[in-house]
Amino acid sequence: MTVRLGDNQYGKAETHVVRVTKKGDLHDIKDMTVSVMLAGDFADTHLEGDNSKVVPTDSQKNAVFALAKESPIGEIEYFALRLARQLVRDHASVRRARVSIAEQPWTRITAGGNPHPHAFERAGSEQRLTTVTCTRDAEWVVSGVTELTLLKTKGSEFWGYPKDRFTTLPETHDRVLATAVEARWRYRSADLDWSASRAEARRQIVETFATKHSLSLQQTLFAMGEAVLEARPEIAEIRFAMPNKHHFVVDLQPFGLENDNEVFYASDRPYGLIEGTVTRDGAEPADQAW
Amino acid sequence: MTVRLGDNQYGKAETHVVRVTKKGDLHDIKDMTVSVMLAGDFADTHLEGDNSKVVPTDSQKNAVFALAKESPIGEIEYFALRLARQLVRDHASVRRARVSIAEQPWTRITAGGNPHPHAFERAGSEQRLTTVTCTRDAEWVVSGVTELTLLKTKGSEFWGYPKDRFTTLPETHDRVLATAVEARWRYRSADLDWSASRAEARRQIVETFATKHSLSLQQTLFAMGEAVLEARPEIAEIRFAMPNKHHFVVDLQPFGLENDNEVFYASDRPYGLIEGTVTRDGAEPADQAW
Amino acid sequence: MTVRLGDNQYGKAETHVVRVTKKGDLHDIKDMTVSVMLAGDFADTHLEGDNSKVVPTDSQKNAVFALAKESPIGEIEYFALRLARQLVRDHASVRRARVSIAEQPWTRITAGGNPHPHAFERAGSEQRLTTVTCTRDAEWVVSGVTELTLLKTKGSEFWGYPKDRFTTLPETHDRVLATAVEARWRYRSADLDWSASRAEARRQIVETFATKHSLSLQQTLFAMGEAVLEARPEIAEIRFAMPNKHHFVVDLQPFGLENDNEVFYASDRPYGLIEGTVTRDGAEPADQAW
Amino acid sequence: MTVRLGDNQYGKAETHVVRVTKKGDLHDIKDMTVSVMLAGDFADTHLEGDNSKVVPTDSQKNAVFALAKESPIGEIEYFALRLARQLVRDHASVRRARVSIAEQPWTRITAGGNPHPHAFERAGSEQRLTTVTCTRDAEWVVSGVTELTLLKTKGSEFWGYPKDRFTTLPETHDRVLATAVEARWRYRSADLDWSASRAEARRQIVETFATKHSLSLQQTLFAMGEAVLEARPEIAEIRFAMPNKHHFVVDLQPFGLENDNEVFYASDRPYGLIEGTVTRDGAEPADQAW
Repeated sequence: MTVRLGDNQYGKAETHVVRVTKKGDLHDIKDMTVSVMLAGDFADTHLEGDNSKVVPTDSQKNAVFALAKESPIGEIEYFALRLARQLVRDHASVRRARVSIAEQPWTRITAGGNPHPHAFERAGSEQRLTTVTCTRDAEWVVSGVTELTLLKTKGSEFWGYPKDRFTTLPETHDRVLATAVEARWRYRSADLDWSASRAEARRQIVETFATKHSLSLQQTLFAMGEAVLEARPEIAEIRFAMPNKHHFVVDLQPFGLENDNEVFYASDRPYGLIEGTVTRDGAEPADQAW
Repeated sequence: MTVRLGDNQYGKAETHVVRVTKKGDLHDIKDMTVSVMLAGDFADTHLEGDNSKVVPTDSQKNAVFALAKESPIGEIEYFALRLARQLVRDHASVRRARVSIAEQPWTRITAGGNPHPHAFERAGSEQRLTTVTCTRDAEWVVSGVTELTLLKTKGSEFWGYPKDRFTTLPETHDRVLATAVEARWRYRSADLDWSASRAEARRQIVETFATKHSLSLQQTLFAMGEAVLEARPEIAEIRFAMPNKHHFVVDLQPFGLENDNEVFYASDRPYGLIEGTVTRDGAEPADQAW
Repeated sequence: MTVRLGDNQYGKAETHVVRVTKKGDLHDIKDMTVSVMLAGDFADTHLEGDNSKVVPTDSQKNAVFALAKESPIGEIEYFALRLARQLVRDHASVRRARVSIAEQPWTRITAGGNPHPHAFERAGSEQRLTTVTCTRDAEWVVSGVTELTLLKTKGSEFWGYPKDRFTTLPETHDRVLATAVEARWRYRSADLDWSASRAEARRQIVETFATKHSLSLQQTLFAMGEAVLEARPEIAEIRFAMPNKHHFVVDLQPFGLENDNEVFYASDRPYGLIEGTVTRDGAEPADQAW
Repeated sequence: MTVRLGDNQYGKAETHVVRVTKKGDLHDIKDMTVSVMLAGDFADTHLEGDNSKVVPTDSQKNAVFALAKESPIGEIEYFALRLARQLVRDHASVRRARVSIAEQPWTRITAGGNPHPHAFERAGSEQRLTTVTCTRDAEWVVSGVTELTLLKTKGSEFWGYPKDRFTTLPETHDRVLATAVEARWRYRSADLDWSASRAEARRQIVETFATKHSLSLQQTLFAMGEAVLEARPEIAEIRFAMPNKHHFVVDLQPFGLENDNEVFYASDRPYGLIEGTVTRDGAEPADQAW
């Protein structure tokens, strides 16, 4: 029998760097958790323990910190591109560098009615994501959001599904719909106004969730993707993973009370999970980007 | 040898209820995780397995849901008071009922430039807290916030501490100060404008963090407590638990770079932990409230 | 109005240290997460930002590492005592030092049928706990276990509880009983065979859970405490916090199936929570120990 | 512009079922968290909100519970195969059913020196995994383990790596090597002795970790995969994701102490992450299996 090494990659995960940029007393901060994964000519270390082509993950971490100093502060896509390009350029053994960043947004504290020059509060659990993948010949930028938690108390139905011996769910024309959106979209270019594009993609997702009458979470998903692609020509495709965070109507009849969709029990597990992709016609496939 | 039963309490923890209130198409939501703990005449179940005085935790959960239907929607303090009073009133065996609520705030989605009548997004990881404790003779309300994460990039020093054989920390006159505030304050009354009081207490905490020049996180803690007590006469005391979320200046010299407090490594563990109480002079002690 | 500083303490939390002890090729490891909290003469830093009495938490961390080198490897109680005593002795400002340790157990890997001299696997999620509190005049040792998860499929009932308008729970003479025990017991001495005492206390808890016919989780709790105190004269009192991890019988009738307590849905939230103390008669109270 | 629906799937995630099997007083338990994902003819619900082909996730959950009753208790691979086959068979719209199970092992409590017939304790945080994928034409079984945490204090080196301007890591011929193995292996058949195969694959992983002298975590990974494939002809390929859980030697020189690899600081983040596949020569590729 013979065995062989298949796909492999490695890198430093979750380097948490905070970069402060100062114009006198006026400070800005960027709070990023940066993960690097490298693929390439790494068979020797697997087979022989020969590390002569293995860029230490410790050096990758150092590169993150150094680049955070050298680079002008910009959007995370820009930072990830800088870092991924540098890793491919500096190391012949690296065929593909993938840099993933989760950004934790902060907002400026308002004190005495004015925005404070150097004090901040965390802006919630939602995070901005980017994954940049660079090879010698190509590069891809995928950006997104995670933990964007949305809920609507009207305008959601679920009925018309097949009934079989395992069906106990009653049909409903009025339910709470709640989800925590993880959306990631692939750009058609690596040179864009990342901030504007992200803000607008996010806005389309949120507004579509609110305004689209929903017959299924799948329909909402597709409508959100369609809205993003229609509004943002720079985006080739968008992928969603959305839990259906069930809110069950509590049976209050034992207590002599009616419950006209007013009191809900929010359940943790199990949950529905809906995953789907919306693609622009003619967009070239790019599985390496993800 | 003889053993005896000491302090004991029990209840249903973390009933997650979402209450929707509707005025036509205009909906409001209240998202609460409610925990009940009862103390009282429960020796028989411990010693004999006699449950004749044990209000089932399942019934406590049901009471949460029923009350969410019956009660007008109000602040969590009001809901907790209603529930705790009812538990003491309805059950002779219950000497003390404690109801703790964590409220997850939601904000209305803006769609097409307008607030949407029934679609919401989660407003972050910060939660509003209350703990109401009722006996037959007294009641206490403690409210607070948790996961209020704050950071300042200027106006924080730490020096002048004792040096001994374990001291390696360099003194600093300019550091990043970051913490996740958990603050809980005890009210002097159970009949207040809870919403206004909470908002103002929170504002004092945040603004003091931003504006108070800090020589230690302890000094910041005390100043925050003092500001709250000075602004809110209805508050008797306030307790803080605040991790010092260390942001270490990265040594960039090996890479030929200076780092004038611009690039930081945000560390998870270990962390400093500062706990302290600020009390109004003359406030009666009330350890049962916590 | 005047405000004043109330109770306060601070320290370094969660210093994660792994200590290897070597006898030639035969290695042992001790994996501890150590947290220190100091109370004492710290008003000046709160009120004035004067840190001249504030032992930096960084120095506390250093002391943990240094002591891990100096000290012979022993039980966590011994290590915590050494550290807490040293902190009180070395710093006049420290009135009370509390050292809490969570130990992660590892077991030796069996390779080729024999225990390996220097390779280990983690022995589960259960952790050993100790909290040692030292003042100039006294010291207390509290030890325990956490995440000791137990389940029995027979020998548990729950009935005879009061019925009121919120009661929907059916009585049962046969249910699954499951909990994750957090038990902490206070010793009467600071000089003991910690390892033997812990092992035997744990054994009493586990065996009593298994063998005691249960009419309520409270009854099980008391029986476990009683068994520990009867078996271990060196223990003065024991405190438990035990969630009732509900396992609900799934209604399979819609699918034409019976369910004679065979198929259960394990629910996360809400859960019952039972807290109780079992005390040896005549044991002196020691609230400072916790 | 036209957009279209791309890859999509949905299902019920994390149905937590506990199955008790009874032979008189002797009980066995199976504790499984079951997740279902279905792909197929689901365009209509995305595009039109037409749910006539959408098997509700609630029905999937019910099928899990019913099957847990009907099926003889066996290994999770067997249960997942039964469920996935049933989903494909019963629903014309389902092209592919994927069932993933995480099993939480329990061990029988020893009481009075004997194994107890119906009381159990959790056997740690390690979980057994399986993912079964069925289409009308094919089926694949992937099994594995997660949170298998291993550590060795000798027999691990890391040196010979390229040095550049970002290199600060010192070479070492003696380090602590620690990781939490997630391994998943693909079977060549769907009819096997799952229990024996899993136990032996796990044993190969653990023993190889212990005994293989390591020049890099990649080398250890490959050796583990090779050992599994050599020992188990029924396995076609194995994939690993292994964090390098860094244990840093603490610098004790400031305290006048040497540290000859005895005292380590266990760091949480950042961490190295090593992913790799080891494949049997000639094994047919099967990306759909994962």
